[in-house]
Amino acid sequence: MKIIIDAMGGDKGPIEMVKGTIDAVNEYGVNVILVGKEDIIQNELKKYSYPKDKVEILVANDIITNEDDPAMAIRRKKDSSMVVGAKALSDGIGDGFISAGSTGALLASGIFIVKRIEGIDRAALTVIYPTIKGFSLLLDAGANVDCKPEYLYQFALMASVYMEKAMGVKSPTIGLINIGSEEGKGNLLSKETYEILKKSQLNFKGNIEARELPSGTVDIIVSDGFVGNVALKLTEGMAISIFSILKEEFIKNSRTKVGAALLKPELRNIKAMMDYREQGGAPLLGIRKPMVKAHGSSDAFAIKNAINQLIKFIEKDVIKIIEDNMHVLDNK
Amino acid sequence: MKIIIDAMGGDKGPIEMVKGTIDAVNEYGVNVILVGKEDIIQNELKKYSYPKDKVEILVANDIITNEDDPAMAIRRKKDSSMVVGAKALSDGIGDGFISAGSTGALLASGIFIVKRIEGIDRAALTVIYPTIKGFSLLLDAGANVDCKPEYLYQFALMASVYMEKAMGVKSPTIGLINIGSEEGKGNLLSKETYEILKKSQLNFKGNIEARELPSGTVDIIVSDGFVGNVALKLTEGMAISIFSILKEEFIKNSRTKVGAALLKPELRNIKAMMDYREQGGAPLLGIRKPMVKAHGSSDAFAIKNAINQLIKFIEKDVIKIIEDNMHVLDNK
Repeated sequence: MKIIIDAMGGDKGPIEMVKGTIDAVNEYGVNVILVGKEDIIQNELKKYSYPKDKVEILVANDIITNEDDPAMAIRRKKDSSMVVGAKALSDGIGDGFISAGSTGALLASGIFIVKRIEGIDRAALTVIYPTIKGFSLLLDAGANVDCKPEYLYQFALMASVYMEKAMGVKSPTIGLINIGSEEGKGNLLSKETYEILKKSQLNFKGNIEARELPSGTVDIIVSDGFVGNVALKLTEGMAISIFSILKEEFIKNSRTKVGAALLKPELRNIKAMMDYREQGGAPLLGIRKPMVKAHGSSDAFAIKNAINQLIKFIEKDVIKIIEDNMHVLDNK
Repeated sequence: MKIIIDAMGGDKGPIEMVKGTIDAVNEYGVNVILVGKEDIIQNELKKYSYPKDKVEILVANDIITNEDDPAMAIRRKKDSSMVVGAKALSDGIGDGFISAGSTGALLASGIFIVKRIEGIDRAALTVIYPTIKGFSLLLDAGANVDCKPEYLYQFALMASVYMEKAMGVKSPTIGLINIGSEEGKGNLLSKETYEILKKSQLNFKGNIEARELPSGTVDIIVSDGFVGNVALKLTEGMAISIFSILKEEFIKNSRTKVGAALLKPELRNIKAMMDYREQGGAPLLGIRKPMVKAHGSSDAFAIKNAINQLIKFIEKDVIKIIEDNMHVLDNK
């Protein structure tokens, strides 16, 4: 197995990308191809000891940033680490691709360079949604803002296969974000999607109200990309807001400062709970080959975890299983 | 001015409804009509001293509960406090109606009994959304799950008038919930709504990402009822989840218990910030006469505040001003 890594992506750049990659090589014995500027990568590689035959460099001298328009950047920046990496994946030079760079550009490179699985109408941005119990898989988190019921059904099917095979959750439960838990609730899209999911062989648990999302009552949360994006960002915003209020109140005077000092380990714990780092990467579901998006703020530890996730994605043949189950889509 | 109060609605029932009403009578000198079962209301009234000529009872012997289907209940439970109260409002027996009962039933009684403002396509459920800075007005919070751009424009217009006149916020700012802040982002509905709002004379600040909602960056948050409902409920769910984690961590051992004890006033403060009680009631915008929904868990203090809000709603002639600005709707 050989994994392609965008060495230039992510807020923390090549330093953490290369370190995380080497940690993965040493820990999992995986072969890797680092894509990016040769001198920069070589410079980082020098710092570590590792089996030299397991690490290659694929040169790419341009970078796609978060400021670039995704679809445009994919077309114009042919020598970017993202495009060169995606092309290498498409050409079969490696078995999977991982990037911590622009989410939109990675998705666009998946759709336009690697291409979609035949029969799948839309690729979904799939994210790790932190909950009290651990995490759920949330999709679509923003790739497809106007959806048809069939897209949502395909998302649920793909996420089910991924979660069962690559994450080891047997018969994962699925919830459809809706404004009420009863059948018949919601807008046209959610009502029609409910009907399809109910008739399917998936482990559909019905509608889930947004209030329940943080409790982790289902393994997979399905919605269109507009609602999914709102849910994901609001969750982030609420966590940030509540912690900023806590902080403000806790440094008010010497009494509160002593109290906060006593609770420091617990407060740190809670913050970590809401962190993406431990969770590994998020798969791009619907693309013909395994691609994983690592969080933009990933450090080496997060990258190593994301590579581990990609290894399982490849090993467990998730995409083949999705393809083999495409007939289910027709029988729904 | 005479205010009609559903004495039977709300989780805490007549005890708190009557107490809050009498507090409002004594503090604001307003006339009231309490709607509900006569013996129960009389029993509560006995506890207080108040100017007898300012308090009437309108008998209604049935109750609509949260378990009732709203539209059905309005048709069948003709002798419920909600229907009798709405009918009294429609007949001009009082100038405004307030209930802490079923939100859906109150909305249905507004639409079917009191009727919509002429030219307004949909009535919106408008809620007080707690933020770091205080609160925003969020609409639609769930009444209209499939919306057209014109509905959202009408929501923005009505909320602007309400916030400026009844809440004293000069030229309130408006944000459209979207998945990105730039123009051109979003689904079909949000793109078209953006165009209309941009051309309007309202104080439109553009798209607002869900991450920003808790920061209170705009006075009025506009969205369709599906997204608005998801945002509102997820905000509640996140607050509940984070506080439940805090609680769990803070009672872990004697060290954390001491820390938590030292921070008790601050933790209570933060919980109160996220509370609806202080904020008064939420207006039903789009209905021909002033109606306010008080939170289901309202106590007497919250009811008094909600009545105060309804008094301003009536005094400031909000509905007349909306009607007078209906021509703006045609010129957009």
